[in-house]
Amino acid sequence: MDYRIKEQAGFSPKIGELVSMLDYTRAVTLADVAGLSIEQLDYLAEGDSNSIGALLMHMAAIEFVHQVITFENRDLTAQELETWLVPLELGDKARSEIRNRPLDDYVAELKKIRDKTLSLLGNVDDSWLYEEGQYDNGATYNKYYLWFHVVEDETSHRGQIRILKRMLEKQK
Amino acid sequence: MDYRIKEQAGFSPKIGELVSMLDYTRAVTLADVAGLSIEQLDYLAEGDSNSIGALLMHMAAIEFVHQVITFENRDLTAQELETWLVPLELGDKARSEIRNRPLDDYVAELKKIRDKTLSLLGNVDDSWLYEEGQYDNGATYNKYYLWFHVVEDETSHRGQIRILKRMLEKQK
Repeated sequence: MDYRIKEQAGFSPKIGELVSMLDYTRAVTLADVAGLSIEQLDYLAEGDSNSIGALLMHMAAIEFVHQVITFENRDLTAQELETWLVPLELGDKARSEIRNRPLDDYVAELKKIRDKTLSLLGNVDDSWLYEEGQYDNGATYNKYYLWFHVVEDETSHRGQIRILKRMLEKQK
Repeated sequence: MDYRIKEQAGFSPKIGELVSMLDYTRAVTLADVAGLSIEQLDYLAEGDSNSIGALLMHMAAIEFVHQVITFENRDLTAQELETWLVPLELGDKARSEIRNRPLDDYVAELKKIRDKTLSLLGNVDDSWLYEEGQYDNGATYNKYYLWFHVVEDETSHRGQIRILKRMLEKQK
């Protein structure tokens, strides 16, 4: 594990620092879920909570959406939305549909999306981070923020995974 | 709310971007806890969980510790540790000692520490972020990472606060 935010070979300087944040965050997430069984990944603490598996798929979905927004400057197509809506929204459908999969499936999905992210980030320079856009409500964002938000969303859900793991531990 | 990671007046360029991350993260945290009563801040979901109040005090404690490590290049003194150990460690003592305080107390504590952080960050330049140190286990960190970790730790606990709020909501 590298505890340094710094430039990375193959990326422009600030993009490399962003990659440090993305990679570090993912490494901690994967360490937190390592060794979980299907039963543990499917565990629902309460009727309306999210499983660890669904939260992992949500992380992949959020990253995919941000690839589309920031590299293609568009929203999801209807077909993309159909593929990703359940892990994006979580909730009832995620509880019934995202289950009974081994950890390797989630890890592979995360890796596939991340590899694409790294490939795309390798082709832009620092100034790309400061390109701005507008939310529907008129608020301005830049692309650096949007990728910071990918990190933030994963980290927030990782905190939730830790609570779920504590609850699982107590059930033994 | 500003959804841009960018330079900030009064800070060197990359320090300003770090301040964007710190400030954005805090704004979301404060929005998440706005309006909570003492009873809600003290709520314990299960015997060994942390209250929202204790998590807020933990955020202040983590930020204080990182001020000391990164600006004074030292660990806490015995006296500082005595002051901060309970919110740092959370657990049993935090459950019994950090309670019965109104939200304003936690917000004031967070603000006091943050004001100091901003004052200190205003006096360093970008190169400071890349100063390195070593953990006891020999792993290398830089100061940019340590402050990223302050953001990360707050975000992870904020995810947990959201679960606690959902549990509170169901109790009504």
